[in-house]
Amino acid sequence: MDELEIDAVAEVELDDPVLVEGLPGVGHVGTLAVEHLLEELEGESTLVRRLYSREFPPQVSVEDGVSELTCAEIHAVEVPEGRDLLLLTGDHQAQSNAGHYTLTDAFLDIAEAFGATEAYALGGVPTGELIDEYAVVGAVNDESLLEPLEDAGVEFREDEPAGGIVGVSGLLLGLGERRGFEATCLMGETSGYLVDPKSARAVLEVLEDVLGFDLAYESLDERADEMEEVIGKIQEMEQQQQMDVPTDDDLRYIG
Amino acid sequence: MDELEIDAVAEVELDDPVLVEGLPGVGHVGTLAVEHLLEELEGESTLVRRLYSREFPPQVSVEDGVSELTCAEIHAVEVPEGRDLLLLTGDHQAQSNAGHYTLTDAFLDIAEAFGATEAYALGGVPTGELIDEYAVVGAVNDESLLEPLEDAGVEFREDEPAGGIVGVSGLLLGLGERRGFEATCLMGETSGYLVDPKSARAVLEVLEDVLGFDLAYESLDERADEMEEVIGKIQEMEQQQQMDVPTDDDLRYIG
Amino acid sequence: MDELEIDAVAEVELDDPVLVEGLPGVGHVGTLAVEHLLEELEGESTLVRRLYSREFPPQVSVEDGVSELTCAEIHAVEVPEGRDLLLLTGDHQAQSNAGHYTLTDAFLDIAEAFGATEAYALGGVPTGELIDEYAVVGAVNDESLLEPLEDAGVEFREDEPAGGIVGVSGLLLGLGERRGFEATCLMGETSGYLVDPKSARAVLEVLEDVLGFDLAYESLDERADEMEEVIGKIQEMEQQQQMDVPTDDDLRYIG
Amino acid sequence: MDELEIDAVAEVELDDPVLVEGLPGVGHVGTLAVEHLLEELEGESTLVRRLYSREFPPQVSVEDGVSELTCAEIHAVEVPEGRDLLLLTGDHQAQSNAGHYTLTDAFLDIAEAFGATEAYALGGVPTGELIDEYAVVGAVNDESLLEPLEDAGVEFREDEPAGGIVGVSGLLLGLGERRGFEATCLMGETSGYLVDPKSARAVLEVLEDVLGFDLAYESLDERADEMEEVIGKIQEMEQQQQMDVPTDDDLRYIG
Repeated sequence: MDELEIDAVAEVELDDPVLVEGLPGVGHVGTLAVEHLLEELEGESTLVRRLYSREFPPQVSVEDGVSELTCAEIHAVEVPEGRDLLLLTGDHQAQSNAGHYTLTDAFLDIAEAFGATEAYALGGVPTGELIDEYAVVGAVNDESLLEPLEDAGVEFREDEPAGGIVGVSGLLLGLGERRGFEATCLMGETSGYLVDPKSARAVLEVLEDVLGFDLAYESLDERADEMEEVIGKIQEMEQQQQMDVPTDDDLRYIG
Repeated sequence: MDELEIDAVAEVELDDPVLVEGLPGVGHVGTLAVEHLLEELEGESTLVRRLYSREFPPQVSVEDGVSELTCAEIHAVEVPEGRDLLLLTGDHQAQSNAGHYTLTDAFLDIAEAFGATEAYALGGVPTGELIDEYAVVGAVNDESLLEPLEDAGVEFREDEPAGGIVGVSGLLLGLGERRGFEATCLMGETSGYLVDPKSARAVLEVLEDVLGFDLAYESLDERADEMEEVIGKIQEMEQQQQMDVPTDDDLRYIG
Repeated sequence: MDELEIDAVAEVELDDPVLVEGLPGVGHVGTLAVEHLLEELEGESTLVRRLYSREFPPQVSVEDGVSELTCAEIHAVEVPEGRDLLLLTGDHQAQSNAGHYTLTDAFLDIAEAFGATEAYALGGVPTGELIDEYAVVGAVNDESLLEPLEDAGVEFREDEPAGGIVGVSGLLLGLGERRGFEATCLMGETSGYLVDPKSARAVLEVLEDVLGFDLAYESLDERADEMEEVIGKIQEMEQQQQMDVPTDDDLRYIG
Repeated sequence: MDELEIDAVAEVELDDPVLVEGLPGVGHVGTLAVEHLLEELEGESTLVRRLYSREFPPQVSVEDGVSELTCAEIHAVEVPEGRDLLLLTGDHQAQSNAGHYTLTDAFLDIAEAFGATEAYALGGVPTGELIDEYAVVGAVNDESLLEPLEDAGVEFREDEPAGGIVGVSGLLLGLGERRGFEATCLMGETSGYLVDPKSARAVLEVLEDVLGFDLAYESLDERADEMEEVIGKIQEMEQQQQMDVPTDDDLRYIG
């Protein structure tokens, strides 16, 4: 296994496509969003590249008894009513600091080869608590990109994200800038405790706006309902536990 | 010390051999299994390769005062009534993520040089508790391998192993697939707390079935009996401790 | 991204400049000091180099919605009444041991290219408690440098810093010595718990003395006053907490 | 800084010298022993090599205000009445697994250049408790070396050292064996909690026996007396603490 091994699975001619990245991160927001895109746009999607690397964790995933080596996948999507897309998914991020640089450069190489000059990195920004309103916080690698996104409802906040953006999402902006890509990171607010389909939906609604396609959200909404049930049960259990623990008052009456 | 140093200790002509891997892992199941094979097939075995690497931990083991540098060993076994074997053992796994890729590629290189195109990675899958029945869970790198193994009693479960297969065992399947190897991982159920000879036996019984040889199990069974004794003692000690700890009821009567 | 990518942003002719390093460290003393220098000498400063590296953490910082890839910056300063300066700042240190060596060599390469043969590494030495007097502890890479610095009030203590000096600051002295640089590390005493503007000021006062320029300290003093307020509040809160915790005497009276 | 930078400080003709290694480890036994040798044989010693490496921690030590970059040192010693020596000392071990291999190969390269074919790695083996008798446990990389060492009082124990020998000491035996060196590791028993001059003395007495020189031990014995004092005080403090803690009996009488 070289540092990088890229399998050319198929070739597709795209017209000025946009790279959309959904690798694992906070609340799995990016992953959920891009997986939903793949599902909804299945008819127009073709798997074009698989990327293997010593930078990925040394493991295979197993489904129905059959193994698959850790990799990242890129699907080309010819969207009739909107921008063409290159959808980037994977089960794992790089396992070392230098590895993030290596992989991001590889993703940008592939995007360039397909004629892309724009990229969207999708992810979540953790609030630390359950929320009702799902804002989408943004970051761009060039000032000129701010306005159209603000028009689409993206919030650019003064002190967020605190600590910047780490990993491939951040480097798509950082390395992208040095390589002539206009890149944007869209981060749906999420508690950070759960996989969050509502946050993924909020991010996708922004993408629909800026990239020109229309999505149905039934399957995502179903997952959101399941999530609500799980949250409900956890909250019940917590209240139950609180009633069992003796309070300070209880302890004063011993003896 | 280069990245890899391979000592050719001896040469043996094998006929379409099968690589069988038993590096350290859960319950030491793989290690026990391959060590038992080496013991039982001693007459037909020849040490052919020793593999040293900067990827192994920088240490020597010491036996009777004499040191040995960390390495992996490959024995060639000409099994009269069954498939020829290449048995891979070692005391340690690689110490870095990239190291697992490097070592697995090296093991496959050696296997190819001996004409092998099939591999079995042996290990354990932890149940988290002591068990009475020892199932063998499987994973393969190609669908076509499922049926014969199911016939041999291997279970392919929908959600197992959760988290996939990590390390050399997983990469023998993953890299093996890219290099034309048919590879199978056999994982004996085990508590995960102890070295488990019963789990090793369950895995070997599957191998006997698919690779055509016959094994005696006396020494493994002896180790299994010792294990039962140890488990018995631990359980006694735990019950003893439980009787000494004051319960909630006891505490209510203070004062 | 190569191991190092250096952007030549501008060229400036300097006369026997001095490299002054203020990367993040204890109490952020070095960073505060060099940032204050940049502020005060803004009229005479030009950004000359940006340094990117796979050795930096794989992230972007975000300000007002716009991203910036982790880097180190070097400003050339033509100081009319004092020594010319090369000011080195950055948000992060290298993320690996070897990375510190790589980056320090790069900083010295750039300094050499501008004709520098002297360097000052600025930092803090933690006392573990809040202090009133701010001494500046020193270390040099050649005996001949001791006296002038002692004259400027720098203290060279027998057992300090315990554990030596780690990271780029230490390597500027260590690698600097092998490459013909006279290098000094100035460490302002600081509690280690807070960003410390008073410690930064103490260090800058030494630099003023040895490098011949004059600085105003208003903005640093404002930050110092804010720091005093924060410390005051923390101390109040601690006293409050101590009054609420039952003492041993209290506990004897139960029952 | 390259992977390795070796400064040739001086040249000395040695006659079939023995490499003696005393890098930091358990109880600092090896370091103490080799430092004592350097002290006692000062008149016959010449610093011949300094070794710098990116594998060493990126730091400088500071003594009396002057810095020194992390390195290993080799002194050549022309011992009139015994074997010539190459004494290897340093403040730090390598910081990565691969680094241990790199550095050990470099030490063996230097030893070979001086005509050495034998090596002694000195260290400690922790007992976990304070001891009165100081045995020296051994390991060799070839059977033929056992007997002369047993005659000198070295103990070769069946299950020790458990876990083998890690780091440069272990690799001097492991890599040494592959490169034609006869290597021995001498490990003085020590509690593991303190720097142990008595353990260092036990190891040096074996070396005197096998390498033919005579050492005085005054300074080491002084350090041993200081150690006894410190141990005495710690034991007093522990007894004091035990008297202050209420026992189970005490607690029964509350209320």
